[in-house]
Amino acid sequence: MIKVGIVGGTGYTGVELLRLLAQHPEVELTAITSRGEAGTPVADMFPSLRGRVALKFSDPKDAPLDRCDVVFFATPNGIAMQQAAALLAAGVRIVDLAADFRIKDVAVWEKWYGMTHAAPELVAEAVYGLPEVNRERIRGARLVANPGCYPTAAQLGFLPLIEAGCVDAGSLIADCKSGVSGAGRKAETHILFSEASDNFKAYGVPGHRHLPEIRQGLALASGKDVGLTFVPHLTPMIRGIHATLYARITREEDVQTLFEKRYAGEPFVDVLPPKSHPETRSVRASNTCRIAIHRPQGGDVLVVLSVIDNLVKGAAGQAVHNMNLMFGFGECVGLTQLPVLP
Amino acid sequence: MIKVGIVGGTGYTGVELLRLLAQHPEVELTAITSRGEAGTPVADMFPSLRGRVALKFSDPKDAPLDRCDVVFFATPNGIAMQQAAALLAAGVRIVDLAADFRIKDVAVWEKWYGMTHAAPELVAEAVYGLPEVNRERIRGARLVANPGCYPTAAQLGFLPLIEAGCVDAGSLIADCKSGVSGAGRKAETHILFSEASDNFKAYGVPGHRHLPEIRQGLALASGKDVGLTFVPHLTPMIRGIHATLYARITREEDVQTLFEKRYAGEPFVDVLPPKSHPETRSVRASNTCRIAIHRPQGGDVLVVLSVIDNLVKGAAGQAVHNMNLMFGFGECVGLTQLPVLP
Amino acid sequence: MIKVGIVGGTGYTGVELLRLLAQHPEVELTAITSRGEAGTPVADMFPSLRGRVALKFSDPKDAPLDRCDVVFFATPNGIAMQQAAALLAAGVRIVDLAADFRIKDVAVWEKWYGMTHAAPELVAEAVYGLPEVNRERIRGARLVANPGCYPTAAQLGFLPLIEAGCVDAGSLIADCKSGVSGAGRKAETHILFSEASDNFKAYGVPGHRHLPEIRQGLALASGKDVGLTFVPHLTPMIRGIHATLYARITREEDVQTLFEKRYAGEPFVDVLPPKSHPETRSVRASNTCRIAIHRPQGGDVLVVLSVIDNLVKGAAGQAVHNMNLMFGFGECVGLTQLPVLP
Amino acid sequence: MIKVGIVGGTGYTGVELLRLLAQHPEVELTAITSRGEAGTPVADMFPSLRGRVALKFSDPKDAPLDRCDVVFFATPNGIAMQQAAALLAAGVRIVDLAADFRIKDVAVWEKWYGMTHAAPELVAEAVYGLPEVNRERIRGARLVANPGCYPTAAQLGFLPLIEAGCVDAGSLIADCKSGVSGAGRKAETHILFSEASDNFKAYGVPGHRHLPEIRQGLALASGKDVGLTFVPHLTPMIRGIHATLYARITREEDVQTLFEKRYAGEPFVDVLPPKSHPETRSVRASNTCRIAIHRPQGGDVLVVLSVIDNLVKGAAGQAVHNMNLMFGFGECVGLTQLPVLP
Repeated sequence: MIKVGIVGGTGYTGVELLRLLAQHPEVELTAITSRGEAGTPVADMFPSLRGRVALKFSDPKDAPLDRCDVVFFATPNGIAMQQAAALLAAGVRIVDLAADFRIKDVAVWEKWYGMTHAAPELVAEAVYGLPEVNRERIRGARLVANPGCYPTAAQLGFLPLIEAGCVDAGSLIADCKSGVSGAGRKAETHILFSEASDNFKAYGVPGHRHLPEIRQGLALASGKDVGLTFVPHLTPMIRGIHATLYARITREEDVQTLFEKRYAGEPFVDVLPPKSHPETRSVRASNTCRIAIHRPQGGDVLVVLSVIDNLVKGAAGQAVHNMNLMFGFGECVGLTQLPVLP
Repeated sequence: MIKVGIVGGTGYTGVELLRLLAQHPEVELTAITSRGEAGTPVADMFPSLRGRVALKFSDPKDAPLDRCDVVFFATPNGIAMQQAAALLAAGVRIVDLAADFRIKDVAVWEKWYGMTHAAPELVAEAVYGLPEVNRERIRGARLVANPGCYPTAAQLGFLPLIEAGCVDAGSLIADCKSGVSGAGRKAETHILFSEASDNFKAYGVPGHRHLPEIRQGLALASGKDVGLTFVPHLTPMIRGIHATLYARITREEDVQTLFEKRYAGEPFVDVLPPKSHPETRSVRASNTCRIAIHRPQGGDVLVVLSVIDNLVKGAAGQAVHNMNLMFGFGECVGLTQLPVLP
Repeated sequence: MIKVGIVGGTGYTGVELLRLLAQHPEVELTAITSRGEAGTPVADMFPSLRGRVALKFSDPKDAPLDRCDVVFFATPNGIAMQQAAALLAAGVRIVDLAADFRIKDVAVWEKWYGMTHAAPELVAEAVYGLPEVNRERIRGARLVANPGCYPTAAQLGFLPLIEAGCVDAGSLIADCKSGVSGAGRKAETHILFSEASDNFKAYGVPGHRHLPEIRQGLALASGKDVGLTFVPHLTPMIRGIHATLYARITREEDVQTLFEKRYAGEPFVDVLPPKSHPETRSVRASNTCRIAIHRPQGGDVLVVLSVIDNLVKGAAGQAVHNMNLMFGFGECVGLTQLPVLP
Repeated sequence: MIKVGIVGGTGYTGVELLRLLAQHPEVELTAITSRGEAGTPVADMFPSLRGRVALKFSDPKDAPLDRCDVVFFATPNGIAMQQAAALLAAGVRIVDLAADFRIKDVAVWEKWYGMTHAAPELVAEAVYGLPEVNRERIRGARLVANPGCYPTAAQLGFLPLIEAGCVDAGSLIADCKSGVSGAGRKAETHILFSEASDNFKAYGVPGHRHLPEIRQGLALASGKDVGLTFVPHLTPMIRGIHATLYARITREEDVQTLFEKRYAGEPFVDVLPPKSHPETRSVRASNTCRIAIHRPQGGDVLVVLSVIDNLVKGAAGQAVHNMNLMFGFGECVGLTQLPVLP
């Protein structure tokens, strides 16, 4: 049993962490902080947790975070970078679900996130928490930067092709669709039910913060810069990301086998048979990424379809997976719930 | 470990049973039948089960159902009554998720279900599988009639009042709203996405089959016939039942305490604090029923709000609960998944 | 052609007024105010109006409202009562879509709305704008209080029974379901897509502001106080109200004929044939109220089903209907668009 | 006034035609056929039309189609080609909303649609009914092949670029998302509410019938074959198509101006200002196509966003537009309803 703290537990990532951690046999939920809700029982805000989570939100100042073995930051960008150094100094390990430590080039991070980085010295140490890429380094990490939701779906879909070097890495396209929970639990007009339902739109086409994150991951795999057009879309569903990925073939390759081999040992990546069309609901509430590969009309364009639950494999579930690696638990412990369908 | 069979596994009740049973530590899934899908791996039809359920659908003729310890019928009405006697004779216990054995008065059943009952001699033996009422009898039952979804939500909401005799049992009103999965996975026009979404309607107002079932349960609790108006509505959500129940007070009573005491030991009924409004999503994908009681404006009408997930507490989850009772497992084994929210 | 102004045009009621008025042949849209959006072209905020509405939002201080023939208030409660006297003095007629002038008993209004009424002297003059009740008085009115959405659906469903005196007016129940747009276009957490979709809940059971409004209307029709239990529910659809109304029969009456006669001449009330179940989408985006009457199982409870589009017949459409009456236009002018289905 | 007939009026395209034609001042609805529903009043099947459409469905054999001025085919593929010759011979003009006459190469058509063409001699005569391309030829046409929904959105988005020759026509990508009504009103499992809502998936990636139609249109504009990857997706909304189009720049061009000039006189194409993200709801229930153009990060890929209502501009509305052209009515007559938002 390890002691676990959560900073910022009132958003969707926070409540999803609570759902998963409350069912994790190796975890003792020790503290959850919220400035605005200090003193409120967690289960008053989220009645789905009634009878199962007895914790109250505590003020960040009073929370015994430094006595935890690991602290999850489920906060807006820019919070974890202010508190990480002190916690690490106290011997606490950290999984940051926000973007503070994802981008290795601090200047790039500051440009896209519009603020000065408060802990640039920790950026190099932080391990990008995509287990399918960095499994061994995560085991030993003090500070894990949990990937974004779009970057998880897009990288898992592109990586086998990029690593094999069989597509043009200069002209990749990622057309991605996200459920509305990806926008968080903030009271904003554009994600109201009456705005977002029975409606579909692209957003952030000129530039979205997940673009440099995906580009960095693919460049590392490729060994050189990649050219990527990334268009996210707001989709009238609660959970789910569907990445439709386009890449031009530069060398013939049995791509189905390529993907199957790449992910053969991965507990949370499922390569579907040829001609499959994965649905987002096939991974709803689970930590699985399902992938299918197509070559339409035998042409020179590959289409990869990659689906995840943005709150699980795209956030809280992957964070728990990282925790499992960091503490030597079985990788799937606490993450075996089957998808909820329908 | 017990051997478990499912008859009719291609509907929503069937796939939900699979989701729950595949995660149940005491269960070995042994057979699942489907005339139309014989030979198809279950996970081909429901990719959410890939890697976790290796079973194929088998033809009913070939399935080794008689070697099971328990068989669930997730079939349309009228199937279980034809096969129950043979299975019971073979020593197999049965949980029927359809309506064949729910109504004790065979003539009433035949009128509402429009067919002749094929096994009237088993109706008396069958135990109505509402554990909050029949726990002890379920433990010893060979044949359990799993309650309908509306009847579960409505009875749990009315029972404390009826048992206490503090409301007019002659003028009860149950205004119930169900998610569309309650209509099953049949290809029918009125439950198409483009018909049922962004839309709301009542149906079956002249008479719905769950009316006699609710009336029977309340009459048993009351000791006399009850007067009940029951109006079901089709609601644009996948899962969930919300029963809004109206009863006229005939004797002053602390109803909050009444409910809390009635359900004090129940693992799957959660009485909310006064002034609460339970949401269906607070029980999504879980076996819990949440209930709140109101007395608007201090008048003489009580309003009880009762929510369940129609596929879990209203079907597959309650069936697993019944199985747990029948085989002496802990009541909550395999049913501890937290609700999925959002 | 009359000159029309709108105060507060950034909410759903406002944009719906714009949609209807922009297509109205007798209307010249002259001014629309918004403190926060002054200077912004209306079509920049609502691209659906591009090319059809050239108006910009203007600051309330600068808007030429006093040169309008009629001004619609599509504002939060408490605004119209502050500005009505000056506009009336300038010869401008008013339709208030908020609640300021709906309740005749100022003390009751102040209790339910939690503020002191700023123009109690105008309350008596104001005409309650339900054309099916007050048609003649509306024609001559300077100040019309446009009914609430729930009150429109509930009153139209109950009125024939109450006027005929054939039901127990002391034990009425109105179980009402509203689309989320009824909660307005405010950025509030509980109406976010990820909170309100795939979910259903009651709210305001202890007391909702539309309760005294419905009660007032029915009491006027009845000639005495009525007993009403009113439970509103938030439904995962954008538009639509479905009122399920329960009344106990006290005198036998051919209720189908009663309703058909009551609404025989009404252009916007459609009494369906017996055994019908009106869907909210059958009136989507139109000014029609459709009603069906049931007597389940031949018992002593009548069930009336009444559906409207909350933004049209429940708000903007009824306001335009009132304007048509006030200015002697044909009642249906500008309101003939057919419902959008699917 | 012209006499109008509809063959196959029980699907979504049919009821949408009825909605538009019932409000068209130059149209007398004369006949609507349905084999299965002969004798049923149209308004019994679609209560949204009650009081406005008095027509009954008639058996195809008895319907006075040959006395109509124009007949719309809102039928499955393969019906219009069997009946067109006889109607044309009787002097009736035809708008086919199905695919029978869209593809000029009969062999290609037969391969994609899996049947022998019954009227190959009419294929050459048929005019492809995209008014933005073929306006003048439509005016004189006897037989108009109304474009598919995806092809309308995709072609309008690509055409200015292809006509200008400023992008690589060999590597176009159309990532398209459709509301579920695009799949029709057939009782099929995969479009049930509980399957399609809160879910997202691609389909037909190996090859969709609209691929050759889009390719044909772009090839005509380009003067040579084009390379196109087309991926359609099923989106949990009722109406709407969102095409996200990718093209590689081969020659610098002021694309914003290019689009604005190309569609300057078009009543139903709206080019949005730079940096816009059109929403499908901004055209809901209207005949408008809204388009925005992006060049993310100043790279060499253009992203065009094109939205339509699949049932209006993608089907029935465009058909009425074509009728207006064929009979010399104003182009916008009967098509001026504003989009319904929210």
